[in-house]
Amino acid sequence: MLGTMQEWPLLAHKILDHAAAQHPNRPVVSRSVEGPIHRTTYGAMHLRARKVAQGLEAHGIKLGDRIGTLAWNTWRHMEVWYGLLGLGAIYHTVNPRLFPDQVAWIINDAEDRLLFIDLTFVPLIEGIMDKLPTVEQVIVLTDAEHMPKDTKLRGAVAYEDWIAARDGNFTWHEFPENTAAGMCYTSGTTGNPKGVVYSHRSNVLHAFQAAMPDMLNLSARDTVMPVVPLFHANGWSLAFSAPMTGAALVMPGAKLDGASIHELLETEKVTITAAVPTVWLMLLQHLEKTFGRISTLKRVIIGGAACPRAVTQAFQETYGVEVAHAWGMTEMSPLGTICSPKPETAGLTGDARLDLQQKQGFPPFGVEMKIVDDEDKTLPCDGKIFGRLKVRGPAVAAAYFKGEGASNFDADGWFDTGDVATIDGYGYMQITDRAKDVIKSGGEWISSIDLENLAIGHPDVAEAAVIGIVHPKWDERPLLIVVAKPGRDPSREDILNFMAGKIAKWWMPDDVVFVEGIPHTATGKIQKTTLRDQFKHYRFET
Amino acid sequence: MLGTMQEWPLLAHKILDHAAAQHPNRPVVSRSVEGPIHRTTYGAMHLRARKVAQGLEAHGIKLGDRIGTLAWNTWRHMEVWYGLLGLGAIYHTVNPRLFPDQVAWIINDAEDRLLFIDLTFVPLIEGIMDKLPTVEQVIVLTDAEHMPKDTKLRGAVAYEDWIAARDGNFTWHEFPENTAAGMCYTSGTTGNPKGVVYSHRSNVLHAFQAAMPDMLNLSARDTVMPVVPLFHANGWSLAFSAPMTGAALVMPGAKLDGASIHELLETEKVTITAAVPTVWLMLLQHLEKTFGRISTLKRVIIGGAACPRAVTQAFQETYGVEVAHAWGMTEMSPLGTICSPKPETAGLTGDARLDLQQKQGFPPFGVEMKIVDDEDKTLPCDGKIFGRLKVRGPAVAAAYFKGEGASNFDADGWFDTGDVATIDGYGYMQITDRAKDVIKSGGEWISSIDLENLAIGHPDVAEAAVIGIVHPKWDERPLLIVVAKPGRDPSREDILNFMAGKIAKWWMPDDVVFVEGIPHTATGKIQKTTLRDQFKHYRFET
Repeated sequence: MLGTMQEWPLLAHKILDHAAAQHPNRPVVSRSVEGPIHRTTYGAMHLRARKVAQGLEAHGIKLGDRIGTLAWNTWRHMEVWYGLLGLGAIYHTVNPRLFPDQVAWIINDAEDRLLFIDLTFVPLIEGIMDKLPTVEQVIVLTDAEHMPKDTKLRGAVAYEDWIAARDGNFTWHEFPENTAAGMCYTSGTTGNPKGVVYSHRSNVLHAFQAAMPDMLNLSARDTVMPVVPLFHANGWSLAFSAPMTGAALVMPGAKLDGASIHELLETEKVTITAAVPTVWLMLLQHLEKTFGRISTLKRVIIGGAACPRAVTQAFQETYGVEVAHAWGMTEMSPLGTICSPKPETAGLTGDARLDLQQKQGFPPFGVEMKIVDDEDKTLPCDGKIFGRLKVRGPAVAAAYFKGEGASNFDADGWFDTGDVATIDGYGYMQITDRAKDVIKSGGEWISSIDLENLAIGHPDVAEAAVIGIVHPKWDERPLLIVVAKPGRDPSREDILNFMAGKIAKWWMPDDVVFVEGIPHTATGKIQKTTLRDQFKHYRFET
Repeated sequence: MLGTMQEWPLLAHKILDHAAAQHPNRPVVSRSVEGPIHRTTYGAMHLRARKVAQGLEAHGIKLGDRIGTLAWNTWRHMEVWYGLLGLGAIYHTVNPRLFPDQVAWIINDAEDRLLFIDLTFVPLIEGIMDKLPTVEQVIVLTDAEHMPKDTKLRGAVAYEDWIAARDGNFTWHEFPENTAAGMCYTSGTTGNPKGVVYSHRSNVLHAFQAAMPDMLNLSARDTVMPVVPLFHANGWSLAFSAPMTGAALVMPGAKLDGASIHELLETEKVTITAAVPTVWLMLLQHLEKTFGRISTLKRVIIGGAACPRAVTQAFQETYGVEVAHAWGMTEMSPLGTICSPKPETAGLTGDARLDLQQKQGFPPFGVEMKIVDDEDKTLPCDGKIFGRLKVRGPAVAAAYFKGEGASNFDADGWFDTGDVATIDGYGYMQITDRAKDVIKSGGEWISSIDLENLAIGHPDVAEAAVIGIVHPKWDERPLLIVVAKPGRDPSREDILNFMAGKIAKWWMPDDVVFVEGIPHTATGKIQKTTLRDQFKHYRFET
């Protein structure tokens, strides 16, 4: 027997319909790539998004076609998203910070038919234009006045000209809710990038999850600034969760430095914002230098990498802004957990509160989570034992585009995050390592990240990396690789003595080697594959 | 092209799985029907709900079977809901306040195979037991000690005995998310009750909507007391939205008087509660009489009937509790709108704030809303023009059980609420009348409720009702029917003079008649059909 409720497919563009109907005059403020501040509303964006859909349809774009965007967070980028969604085409956000060859690879893998790009990325795309056979036309997100002259971009046209002829009298198409809506590639440290394909349903359900009081907590009275770019892990859902709740939006465009971010926080009375730790380090440095203050901001969401304790402390104790540590993955739409207080932890203060906030938090309804050992046996949640973190839910990937990376998905529906984590008795999860970086010593696991964080506390250490080295007795033992600070020359014993007593004895690195530099990926992560390759013949003295 | 996200059906019992995994020790406190306060947790309820499922399965209950409950809000009632959900059977909440014949009619229409009933309702069911051929067994929600002796209930067994033999080692069944989950009959003023059949999907989506910051705003740090019974319009979703967010629950059992409610609010540190206005009138009278205070309650949700301005004012100004006026329908799962502040209204104070709060508010994402005229043409949202209110969404009914009342559903998917409403420029909806009660005068509509509320302001008037009387020139004109206060004897002119100047001239009743009493339905509504019948030969003098 079925329920007798309405068939009302969860289509992501209905979110903008709702915002335009219920919150038509709510502001969407952007720092334009051209420079000036631009102001619009959900009502006006709704009209322009339908003009985008008309333009796409006139071009012959159809259900299921992929369209690339290389763009900052602005009103135009969001209009393009919703125009695509309403037609059943797929927004494919390309990370413009990748190497040009990777950008080309990704656009070709997705077979993007059009590109919408910001002025910033004209040189990048001009440089690879010849390698992009599927791209029929490049639309530059600007007006005629700012269009580059004599560009090599195929069929280059200014976005404002491109939509000028349309009247917006367009009815969204209807299709099943599991239709593809968006696409974002993960840039792993090995192999080719893998495409995650969001559905309309997953985006809508995820926006519900994200807006909840213990997650982002978004209301029509909030003003949200997504500093995290829309091309980073589905923009942390903010292009959906903000209009879903009627929260106003402030879009920072291309300028993510401390001064620019601070200016927008203050002039636009932002109440909640979200980005990776490096952005907040820049903001805090700017505030310190200028004796700046924060007036209206209530909450800052920090994710994408573990948030340094000092950042949390500065926001809360110096500026009176609450920090919510978050964790997610491109494969999870992306939010997995947020570190909100529960009744058992709401009363914590000082160091105890900061200790808790180092954890990544707990999931909303619709994200199932477990930690398992090497035999896939579920481990207890005691906050100490760590295991591979697996997740399940309606906004979690079941596969990658074209069936890549199938080994990350279990037969019973769990996605292996590749992270190693603990979960404590209150349900708070904390990432302790990447699974491929953990050191397996005598059947037990040692967290490389914990060792690195500890080593970096030594005053002479600039950067540290830990990898596992094959060991005849213990399978693997940790090797600590150190870059000394300029002008400093610590010894092996200096470092080991500093670490001793702060960790279990069997966690202590078997050796320390000093190097000039440590290799990084395009997104700033330590390239451990290269390190492992570099040290593949290294053996501990026995 | 489809998204590559996981198939994770929205099944309502996963909500209790989530609460048990993430919030296992969160309290569920009930005033038991036997008397004492009972304490359990989501973790313990999860185990007992699985015992219920085992018991049901042992009885032979299968996917799609309907099971009736006549029960107050307690932990046992919720366990039964979740046990049924996890098996794919259907919780059918029967309103025990209906007349016995109606109760029998509803149970027979649903073909309930089992009944779970509180001790309170043993006499009621004993009285109609012979008329309930589909009911195979009656399980009384109590323990052996409290079981009635020599009962006529078919196969009577105490719930605690019934589940005692089970171990809870039970895996929920899996089925598609549009499977029927629950059932609730609407008691119209005409015709037989009509069954609304919720699906698992609609219950889950509705819980997301309900939990959002601008709706009920539920967090794991909240303690929610649903005073509204689970048998009233799907329990306003609280049996789903509270465990979904990890909010603690306080269940008031059978005692809904002011003193009992006040006691629980204080001893259990309730932060949010919800019920119809009459409950709050009783509480406010109790507080006034006892000089009581409210310590922890932050928000009270008031719906089911228009909330008197004086109630809102007393909560906010005397007791410092924020009021959220809500509107919904059994057919809407049930929440449609809540009157939360938007940026444009958040600064209102005093009378302007109370004026706003008389409105029923705005909908969450997933509730579409429009007002239309007699030709189904959409009317403007100016806060003055009123029209028939129509709604659409994934938690709105598309039909009634067995195809009853099909005329309430449009071909294009809109449900006609039967209400007449205005929507203002900020999106706030206000109910002005029931469509069948509105007086149609010369092509324009007059709100019977507005006239009744005005008449009731006269110091000599105890109760007032307005109905339309056939008129040769204007089609219909309003007749005001008045019950005078004991010992008072107002004249027709007294009342009309009191009303004059406070409404448009053409809204003035053409006549006033005085009666001894006005007929009411079992749920306390004025029975206008009876009044119309009573006055069907009445004609205005011309």
